[in-house]
Amino acid sequence: VTHAELLERMHALALSLQDKTVSALERVDGAGTFGRDEWQRPGGGGGLARVLSGGAVFEKAGVNVSRVDGALSPALAAKLPGQGDRFAAVGLSLVLHPLSPMVPTAHANIRLLARGEKAWFGGGADLTPYYLFDEDASHFHRTLKAACDRYQPGCHRRFKDACDAYFFLRHRGEHRGVGGIFFEDLGGDPSRELAFVEDVGRSFLEAYLPIVERRRHLSWGEAERTWQEIRRGRYVEFNLLFDRGTVFGLETGGRTESILMSLPPRVRFVYDHRPEPGSAEARLLEVVRRPRDWA
Amino acid sequence: VTHAELLERMHALALSLQDKTVSALERVDGAGTFGRDEWQRPGGGGGLARVLSGGAVFEKAGVNVSRVDGALSPALAAKLPGQGDRFAAVGLSLVLHPLSPMVPTAHANIRLLARGEKAWFGGGADLTPYYLFDEDASHFHRTLKAACDRYQPGCHRRFKDACDAYFFLRHRGEHRGVGGIFFEDLGGDPSRELAFVEDVGRSFLEAYLPIVERRRHLSWGEAERTWQEIRRGRYVEFNLLFDRGTVFGLETGGRTESILMSLPPRVRFVYDHRPEPGSAEARLLEVVRRPRDWA
Repeated sequence: VTHAELLERMHALALSLQDKTVSALERVDGAGTFGRDEWQRPGGGGGLARVLSGGAVFEKAGVNVSRVDGALSPALAAKLPGQGDRFAAVGLSLVLHPLSPMVPTAHANIRLLARGEKAWFGGGADLTPYYLFDEDASHFHRTLKAACDRYQPGCHRRFKDACDAYFFLRHRGEHRGVGGIFFEDLGGDPSRELAFVEDVGRSFLEAYLPIVERRRHLSWGEAERTWQEIRRGRYVEFNLLFDRGTVFGLETGGRTESILMSLPPRVRFVYDHRPEPGSAEARLLEVVRRPRDWA
Repeated sequence: VTHAELLERMHALALSLQDKTVSALERVDGAGTFGRDEWQRPGGGGGLARVLSGGAVFEKAGVNVSRVDGALSPALAAKLPGQGDRFAAVGLSLVLHPLSPMVPTAHANIRLLARGEKAWFGGGADLTPYYLFDEDASHFHRTLKAACDRYQPGCHRRFKDACDAYFFLRHRGEHRGVGGIFFEDLGGDPSRELAFVEDVGRSFLEAYLPIVERRRHLSWGEAERTWQEIRRGRYVEFNLLFDRGTVFGLETGGRTESILMSLPPRVRFVYDHRPEPGSAEARLLEVVRRPRDWA
């Protein structure tokens, strides 16, 4: 297949998954609905942002598709694989910030990049709980592992380790959450890889929505909310200091509001906050400092 | 003077200014007091963090001194002037986040860096209002201009323009606030430059505290608070995406809590927020998009 065909198929897949995901999330939320913002990129391409704010379950949720192409800046050209000064990228990216601190934040992304002779898929999904239920982390990881096993037995370990390595705040010695999978430039057959990213996109809902249903009715108060807002601060730190997708999007002139929909709706930055030893909050810190094998 | 002497004099100055600034801010606040956290850097040096949280006027305020030295990573060595693989740095950095949206956030910093044969001063101060009073912006700029004029007539224009250029969120097309001054590597006589950064450090309080007194008793409600928290989001974006001091501190293994005390205490990230045309909020946006000559 040519790059043009692959980009076209990936775009169709991203739009179809966006539709299905938005519908599923609106059903779960029961109150909020997603807006619909189409945008054009001056340098080439554009996207469709679907964002929900102030829902019953989701305080802020974004499910975005973009398809962009154009010239690479020299700075960006130095960072990307492949040759040549033009690129094309198609991606679906979603970030879900629940209102309840008992429901984890979740993220998933699938993407196809092309530059010169080279085209490569990437993607991943990860879970960021504020209060940790081991069975939730296991369910999330096992569901993603099943998709990995369907693609290539044995690859899950690699993709899980890559996720732990990627979602890492080195100035904190903390990972963003309990991880998931992360992969890039698989170097195999493009049609099989397209099928894999489709499977990841579908599996994400299967991995995440049962957790939402299990935890959405748990009670919480001001203390749990404060902890959630402090931990959301780490999400902000990761996305603005380290996330390659955020930097890539902003540097290539993507739509700022679509890219930064990933930032949590309300956040606290508290100086030198330390949870009580032995508390649920302290236990979460231990887990984000030392990744576990959850599958 | 040798670098060692210069670093020593700068350190004494930074600690003395820290003391005076903390005392002045506690008097103005009337309720909160600054904590005192000494820290050591594993690679060499350390610092003294003075942070106030939950005051009557200041929701969060940090006045930090650090004095560090050690080996430069190759990545950082490529970004810094001078030669050699070791560096030393002494700095005073303060960020003040008032509770009231009617009182602007303010920042100031003075620093001395040394690498190999080269040692250079830098620093600046800037003002970030949420509601703009023209006379406040003028007072702030004129007070800093007076310090610049005492150092070198004509330099204020350069330092003001450098401030506008530095505190710029290019993905937003917005400056961080109404600016101030910013300077680095002045290339003159070290003793005169030390006197200049001392003058900047002293002038900062003279530039800022009268604004606090004028605005602290103005009334405000939920709408003004929401706008303040949204604009604080831009402060977070700037500091984590662009601020060289933040990146330098984190990359050289500085104390994370001291460096990130600059982040505002409570923040909102609202998707595609647009103020009412003609409102005070819209007027602020116009001003941060097109810097003015306030002095």
